[in-house]
Amino acid sequence: MAASKIDGKWFREIDDAWKGYSISLEIEEVLYHEKSDFQDILVFKSTTFGNVLVLDGVYQCTERDEFSYQEMIAHLPLNSHPNPTKVLVVGGGDGGVVREVLKYPSVEQVVLCEIDQKVIDVSKKYLPDMASCLSDPRVLVHVGDGVKYMEENTQSFDVIITDAPDPIGAAKGLYTKDYYEGLKRALKPKGIISCQGETLWFDLDFIKKILTYCKGVFPVVAYASGYTPTYAGGHMGFFLCSNDSSINLKEPIRNYSNKELDDMSMKYYSPHVHRACFNVLPYFARKALTEVLDT
Amino acid sequence: MAASKIDGKWFREIDDAWKGYSISLEIEEVLYHEKSDFQDILVFKSTTFGNVLVLDGVYQCTERDEFSYQEMIAHLPLNSHPNPTKVLVVGGGDGGVVREVLKYPSVEQVVLCEIDQKVIDVSKKYLPDMASCLSDPRVLVHVGDGVKYMEENTQSFDVIITDAPDPIGAAKGLYTKDYYEGLKRALKPKGIISCQGETLWFDLDFIKKILTYCKGVFPVVAYASGYTPTYAGGHMGFFLCSNDSSINLKEPIRNYSNKELDDMSMKYYSPHVHRACFNVLPYFARKALTEVLDT
Repeated sequence: MAASKIDGKWFREIDDAWKGYSISLEIEEVLYHEKSDFQDILVFKSTTFGNVLVLDGVYQCTERDEFSYQEMIAHLPLNSHPNPTKVLVVGGGDGGVVREVLKYPSVEQVVLCEIDQKVIDVSKKYLPDMASCLSDPRVLVHVGDGVKYMEENTQSFDVIITDAPDPIGAAKGLYTKDYYEGLKRALKPKGIISCQGETLWFDLDFIKKILTYCKGVFPVVAYASGYTPTYAGGHMGFFLCSNDSSINLKEPIRNYSNKELDDMSMKYYSPHVHRACFNVLPYFARKALTEVLDT
Repeated sequence: MAASKIDGKWFREIDDAWKGYSISLEIEEVLYHEKSDFQDILVFKSTTFGNVLVLDGVYQCTERDEFSYQEMIAHLPLNSHPNPTKVLVVGGGDGGVVREVLKYPSVEQVVLCEIDQKVIDVSKKYLPDMASCLSDPRVLVHVGDGVKYMEENTQSFDVIITDAPDPIGAAKGLYTKDYYEGLKRALKPKGIISCQGETLWFDLDFIKKILTYCKGVFPVVAYASGYTPTYAGGHMGFFLCSNDSSINLKEPIRNYSNKELDDMSMKYYSPHVHRACFNVLPYFARKALTEVLDT
């Protein structure tokens, strides 16, 4: 775990994954700080980013910029699928991804598999814009280990979103080839997966490793980029794969108008962003990932 | 100026422009720290980002990620121009932008107008990969105020790049309508300007103000986005304008191959990035800028 700490009026995120670099947020008030069975959970009210959820010393989301991550990890796969009806979200106990999934009228059921009940509880209390959707009748919350869930699961899904923290501690198993094979088994035809994909500035070798797993398992593999200022480096990537080679992940199926985007309360995602986010990868990163990316 | 400070082994960038948010870099050694006639200049060797130049408490560049900014602000306009021969760079005494401009064989002269001789001097000493190009025979260094230069200038240029710090202190005059009118006067037919364009997360109102100036002065206006982890929010935008309505800023003229990009020592910019970087703007920002952007 990190040496991240509360330093006077600031929370500093310090982690070996981005050694020598740290993003701090100013604290107005610490709202919650406990160790659960799985991790250190901190929630504080910041002076300018709203409430902030920190797991094992690493930012998970802030009220001010969480939409950037939640919308990208959800709408890239959902708007590449012709008719998503059943969706699985692994991790994401804060509810932000589920909130986005429920924006698709075709979705009949969302299963959320979160390992840590405490994350769900504190999110309901301190991040209500994200977690309140968890009481929607279409949502089935399963508290348990995502890796085990995928091993034992017998259901199949149109879209599976892995909203995992960084590959340390509790989330390590969500970044293995076995896990990706489990995802493939759990997909319906025309199925799409989307997974948290780390940052190009600090994790390029790791990104390449995961994309290599993906390439070994899925016929269609892509890597998208988003901007999130409170994630180290300001960049957040997404691994996207489909088990159907006719699926084009890079072209949105529904070409939402501004009116439709507004009606869906969209703040980050748009068809413009969807088409561009695969191509904006800096050349050094594109080159490093050439062998494992569909370009 | 900022309350940024050296805090134990870390430099913390604190500024009212991104209140409550701060990026820190770990210091290995402070190499230079003096007040010039214009600003506070700090250079330190960081543990993981190479040497770092800080002006008035704000990161200007680090050796590890400077290429992202320099390549974008230079190649977006240069690779939208059919035959750039004469280029002006305002600011940018570190030499990074000039280095990129010199990659175009058609360029016969680059004028660099930098207000602060000290910035040139410390860059030559501590950022040699950027500043060594300043002794190239095609480069004419003019030490003086960029605003005054534009008022008195009688030359004309194919491309003008304003590599300005944030609009505080010395650089304030580089973000006025008068300055943009001066840029237009100094452009040859088919001329293109490119200016540092702040970050969408913290400066959206300011970006809109500048784009409104641009729109009042130029027939073609666009806003591009890049990733730079040591700039607040991890995002850096670019204002791009042309005085010729037939110029398409969003389509690169030279469709460089990987081999050509490698020969030019490119690390960030590519034709893929050029085409995508205008469309990757998050929806909330695109909406805010709708009235002033050519979409």
